[in-house]
Amino acid sequence: MRALRFENKKLKLADIAKPDESNEAVIRVLKSGICNTDIEIVKGYANFEGTIGHEFVGVVEEANDAPNLVGKRVVGEINAGCGNCELCLKGDSRHCPARTVLGIVGRDGAHAEFLSLPSKNLLEVPDEVSDIQAVFVEPLAAAFGITEQVRILPETKVAVIGDGKLGILCAQSLALKSENVALIGKHKEKLKIVENRNVEGILLENTSKLNRQFDVVVEASGSESGFDLALNLIKPRGKLVLKSTFHGEAKWQAWRVVVDEITIIGSRCGRFEPALELLKNKLIDVESLVSQEVKLEDGVKALETAAQKNVMKVILSTSRNHLRQRMVEADI
Amino acid sequence: MRALRFENKKLKLADIAKPDESNEAVIRVLKSGICNTDIEIVKGYANFEGTIGHEFVGVVEEANDAPNLVGKRVVGEINAGCGNCELCLKGDSRHCPARTVLGIVGRDGAHAEFLSLPSKNLLEVPDEVSDIQAVFVEPLAAAFGITEQVRILPETKVAVIGDGKLGILCAQSLALKSENVALIGKHKEKLKIVENRNVEGILLENTSKLNRQFDVVVEASGSESGFDLALNLIKPRGKLVLKSTFHGEAKWQAWRVVVDEITIIGSRCGRFEPALELLKNKLIDVESLVSQEVKLEDGVKALETAAQKNVMKVILSTSRNHLRQRMVEADI
Repeated sequence: MRALRFENKKLKLADIAKPDESNEAVIRVLKSGICNTDIEIVKGYANFEGTIGHEFVGVVEEANDAPNLVGKRVVGEINAGCGNCELCLKGDSRHCPARTVLGIVGRDGAHAEFLSLPSKNLLEVPDEVSDIQAVFVEPLAAAFGITEQVRILPETKVAVIGDGKLGILCAQSLALKSENVALIGKHKEKLKIVENRNVEGILLENTSKLNRQFDVVVEASGSESGFDLALNLIKPRGKLVLKSTFHGEAKWQAWRVVVDEITIIGSRCGRFEPALELLKNKLIDVESLVSQEVKLEDGVKALETAAQKNVMKVILSTSRNHLRQRMVEADI
Repeated sequence: MRALRFENKKLKLADIAKPDESNEAVIRVLKSGICNTDIEIVKGYANFEGTIGHEFVGVVEEANDAPNLVGKRVVGEINAGCGNCELCLKGDSRHCPARTVLGIVGRDGAHAEFLSLPSKNLLEVPDEVSDIQAVFVEPLAAAFGITEQVRILPETKVAVIGDGKLGILCAQSLALKSENVALIGKHKEKLKIVENRNVEGILLENTSKLNRQFDVVVEASGSESGFDLALNLIKPRGKLVLKSTFHGEAKWQAWRVVVDEITIIGSRCGRFEPALELLKNKLIDVESLVSQEVKLEDGVKALETAAQKNVMKVILSTSRNHLRQRMVEADI
């Protein structure tokens, strides 16, 4: 089968054996989404080698331990725990120290014709959710997961920093709980996406008077400057959700966290069920985030495209039907 | 009156006017404690100029708006809010952006014969609590405050990093809630202080096998390496309490906080009432932390002594009776 692989520090389309894990389900991938993490992996993050990709929708072809799933359209929780450690036994395989993670840690990923995952990781996709929408379940789960970590009330003042895909999903998710959500970014056209979703778009250059205004700040820009801005915007005793990672050794003014008694909440993944439910009920606009849909065969170029400024989600498709080449306005 | 003042980048004993704040209480200081923050101020932290010191016990001499306090032995909450902002009106003057802080921000401090504070900041000291013990109310409140920010159960595995005064107070406080508290430090003799207080002392060099073992880690060493150790020791989804500050721009591996979904809780002050209650009931040993008690007049030298390795709390006394010169074993 064809698979988009990162090996020997090089990304290439390769022909490899179809997965044959008798104790896991085998899924035929319909579509997969390119995430910033994929781009980071190709830069060397996580020292991963193998098939990249972790956002997908597919159809189950084999599932020895769950025959009822065969033929079903599914999405899949990307962390697979060892099943035996304290955390796995508590049901938290997302933090199992020996876990594999689809396309990120020790497990071939989703930019391929087929992938395998434990059948317990799979969730059926309701008919109301399109393939394109289903590709967003993983990042949307991660975004909406914030609402399960931090109590958000209608009056809670929330700022999301970063108008990339993740920031936009976070802002929309939080606006389902709070009537006071602002998305802060550099790009007018990206901020526009959320403006009819009960989110105020604020250009970065207009934030200087917003110091100490927000109860909750979500850092989704993945930059040191975004974290510094978050410390400026947050009220004393506020909650700063660290959503995206900046790699290596970042600098921070730890004393501000102590003096203002701020809580920083690291946030990585979320549960898939609520994300599927949100998409089923059309509560989140993910379609506006799709910049381009291309064939899996064009994956190497697609990753380059996805890394460009102003490009949002690029989707790879294994089925040759229904391909679209939707571009963001004027930028590519 | 005599006061220990930091002015023009120099610490000196000065003769200044007694406080005369008609809208505040005037307190005759009995004893005051030298805190690491005092030492940091003399290094330039907080750009403070004036009388230093914020840990004290004293007797109220004047209090126009609270005559019942006159003659009472008191300790005092060190933050004085503006009284009018959103935070002050909510009762959180500790985070008022216009607050003054005794001997730290815009307000003369406690290493003097007299100080002034709003009378509402004062708490009467029960007879069961000695002057020496009362000097520890402020740092003990800060230590015990952790138990109000983080839920600690008997089975919660807690590590406190740093065997200085603050770390020892934190470890003792947490051991009142959890049966699994470890204090990690470099000094056998300091670790010994807590060992009969239900706290396990662990030398820093013996921590390499403790990675991901603790539900709650308190960073009280004030060093970057302490923070890195905290990230090693903490379980995924654990809570890291940042208790002491390392100034300037520290480095951190922010991605670890995201991947392991750690919560970092900045913690500065605590309520005085529970601290007084703990001391009254002899639940915390503070006497073992006293290295030396000297006259206020010897304050400049006392600050030098307090900055030495292996010296714990140095107490300044205005009353010339009852002076002690207790030294820690062999070190000074």
